[in-house]
Amino acid sequence: MTKIKTETPKGMRDFLPEEMIKREYVMERIKKIFEKYGFDPLETPAVEYAEVLTGKYGEDEKLIYKFFDKGNRELALRYDLTVPLARVMAANPNLPKPFKRYHISRVWRYDRPQKGRYKEFWQCDIDTIGSKSMKADAELIAVMTEVMKELGFKKFTIQINNRKLLNGIMLYSGLKTDKIKEALISLDKINKVGKLGVIEEMKNREIKEESINKIMELMVKEGSDEGILAELKDKVTDAEGMEGLKEMEELLSILKEMGIDKMYKLVLSLARGLDYYTGTIFETVVEEPSIGSLTGGGRYDTLIGRFSNNDLPAVGTSFGIERIIDVMKELRMGLPEQKTKSKVFAVNVTPDTEKDVNRIVSDLRAEGISAQSDLMGRPISKQIKFADSLGIPFVVIVGPDELKEGMVKLKDMKTGTEENIKVRELAKKLGI
Amino acid sequence: MTKIKTETPKGMRDFLPEEMIKREYVMERIKKIFEKYGFDPLETPAVEYAEVLTGKYGEDEKLIYKFFDKGNRELALRYDLTVPLARVMAANPNLPKPFKRYHISRVWRYDRPQKGRYKEFWQCDIDTIGSKSMKADAELIAVMTEVMKELGFKKFTIQINNRKLLNGIMLYSGLKTDKIKEALISLDKINKVGKLGVIEEMKNREIKEESINKIMELMVKEGSDEGILAELKDKVTDAEGMEGLKEMEELLSILKEMGIDKMYKLVLSLARGLDYYTGTIFETVVEEPSIGSLTGGGRYDTLIGRFSNNDLPAVGTSFGIERIIDVMKELRMGLPEQKTKSKVFAVNVTPDTEKDVNRIVSDLRAEGISAQSDLMGRPISKQIKFADSLGIPFVVIVGPDELKEGMVKLKDMKTGTEENIKVRELAKKLGI
Repeated sequence: MTKIKTETPKGMRDFLPEEMIKREYVMERIKKIFEKYGFDPLETPAVEYAEVLTGKYGEDEKLIYKFFDKGNRELALRYDLTVPLARVMAANPNLPKPFKRYHISRVWRYDRPQKGRYKEFWQCDIDTIGSKSMKADAELIAVMTEVMKELGFKKFTIQINNRKLLNGIMLYSGLKTDKIKEALISLDKINKVGKLGVIEEMKNREIKEESINKIMELMVKEGSDEGILAELKDKVTDAEGMEGLKEMEELLSILKEMGIDKMYKLVLSLARGLDYYTGTIFETVVEEPSIGSLTGGGRYDTLIGRFSNNDLPAVGTSFGIERIIDVMKELRMGLPEQKTKSKVFAVNVTPDTEKDVNRIVSDLRAEGISAQSDLMGRPISKQIKFADSLGIPFVVIVGPDELKEGMVKLKDMKTGTEENIKVRELAKKLGI
Repeated sequence: MTKIKTETPKGMRDFLPEEMIKREYVMERIKKIFEKYGFDPLETPAVEYAEVLTGKYGEDEKLIYKFFDKGNRELALRYDLTVPLARVMAANPNLPKPFKRYHISRVWRYDRPQKGRYKEFWQCDIDTIGSKSMKADAELIAVMTEVMKELGFKKFTIQINNRKLLNGIMLYSGLKTDKIKEALISLDKINKVGKLGVIEEMKNREIKEESINKIMELMVKEGSDEGILAELKDKVTDAEGMEGLKEMEELLSILKEMGIDKMYKLVLSLARGLDYYTGTIFETVVEEPSIGSLTGGGRYDTLIGRFSNNDLPAVGTSFGIERIIDVMKELRMGLPEQKTKSKVFAVNVTPDTEKDVNRIVSDLRAEGISAQSDLMGRPISKQIKFADSLGIPFVVIVGPDELKEGMVKLKDMKTGTEENIKVRELAKKLGI
């Protein structure tokens, strides 16, 4: 047999245990929070019939991996987790509503690999399907808040806005319907190009200066969320805009009732790129490092229903899990540094103590403690070196003299401190 | 936008929360045990360069999903988790040894779908790479024992044998090297066709009756593992066979030292189909239902090394996780039956209590309890019906009269019993 090719396809990665332990640390914490808020796991095939994905992604459809199976059916690797969700909703019309699901799994995009961009990567979505209530939107903001705090982010803001309200502001500013989309595209770039950049772009799009002034005046308003809303009351007068205003008031009031930490903020300039949003929109931004948003989502009341011919309002958010992990690594935010989850390595001093080591390791495992011992016939120093190379925090040195007294030596690999300890007290000591 | 096609590709499945909760129950328990024994998680891309998989699976290569990407590179969906492991070992020659990894993830095979067979399914492997020690083999048997017990299997046997020993028995029986492989193929069918069936097949393969008698006499030997080995001592006399005998003795002695439950048994007729095994082999069989083996594996000291031009002995086992889940469902082996992980649903009695419900649910979540409440504006009875339809075990009825006293009504949905309880004692009560 020839030597194996060692490369993964470009933009796709192996995750060695060292990396997996970090990733699972993040994902398990996130999952636990999702479940606390009543979101439950869903999984769908990695492979879909190509026609399920066709016509759903506009321009980006060219990024889908498509291929034919041996039965000449056209298949595709899934591009995101939203279209599979829409398919599941259509396939299971009798699922109890609201259907609150999370989905953390891989997707594929034939994109040019670059820093932080992969061809195979994990998405992490939560969505509530079937409810129009602002309480559903509030729950998502609560989840985002708790996830960010749990992962150790201190300075972050959950920017919230409402598409209907934003539309109303554009109408108030004198924009015609056909110009609103263009104005939102410009506005969406405010974090990248700044206020002056937005104004310039709007001018280039031939939006009247009077309108631009009216828009930008509102965008820079300082004050409490409620204060800003109060000011909009006599400005936003179209029916939809007023509905958006009411939804935002309701959302803020529910967030207060729920007692959610005030990490959210009404940001009227938040527009979000995708055009399927219909109401609330939100993003989580961190001040440092400046890496854009870590979550993004909103209400999309017509998208899912369109696929299934049912009225299925929906609100959801994506967590940029790959980016979150990258940032946490960069900022050394308490991610585990071990190459193993093992807590202790039992060192065998002489061939005679081997059976004692075997028993001690078995007993530790029976007590739920992750333990290893030598499988290579190595001398003591190399056993300790191996344990250290994996970052195992404790070694137990099992020597014949100590054993006669029913003792072993416990070494803390971080501090270097050693103590003699009774074999039968080992599990208790390590279990802490 | 047209209605979405609702089908998944044949042999590939959606897993709704009800199903996912069962699957994760099994996988999380298994993972915890793997980690206790010092196995750590590895993940690899779902997609490999086709040439990585080419020439590795013999006949079955036709089952691989292959396709070209837009850069005209031939890619393939991975067929198993062993070849990716071999690739990882070759790509990372400096990984500390032994390298003990587990990998639970999906693979794809263009197979005809049938009961319990899927085109996309999960494999669950543990392997120890780099160690020749029988202690590595013993650890795997310990893991299998604990996994089966943890999942609730009562009657199971871990059959163990050794390929070198088996080879020695064949030589003792007078078989020429070229006939041994044929004899093993026949022997491997003993559970399907019985002893007489094996004898008949061997006859058809023109194995001499004297040899068949010698083989079958040993295969039906009753007695302790050690007794059987003792009897083989003066029969198995070739160097490799004697090595196998020694390995088996060592393995049994380590298992005793480790204090592993005696669920394992030396079964000389165990041969295992795949021809890359070089030493110990093992399978877990359950008596009821009769569904063949739930785990299978062994030592394959040359396979990984062949790919990387390194000497990398290896021992591993697969857990038939899809089959295990199917059996556990069939036998109603305590898999969770909920459609959600939520523990409690807070019922809103009047519009006035809505803010109290929001606060109560938030407080429960803050205490780590998974809680939900109405998002649909439903009346009381329909809220309770919804909670019941998901299998949520408790509802808390938040009514204005009880609230005046700081109380709510807690209902156990299984027993139907109700009690009034102080709001601030709710979390404690539900946390048990």
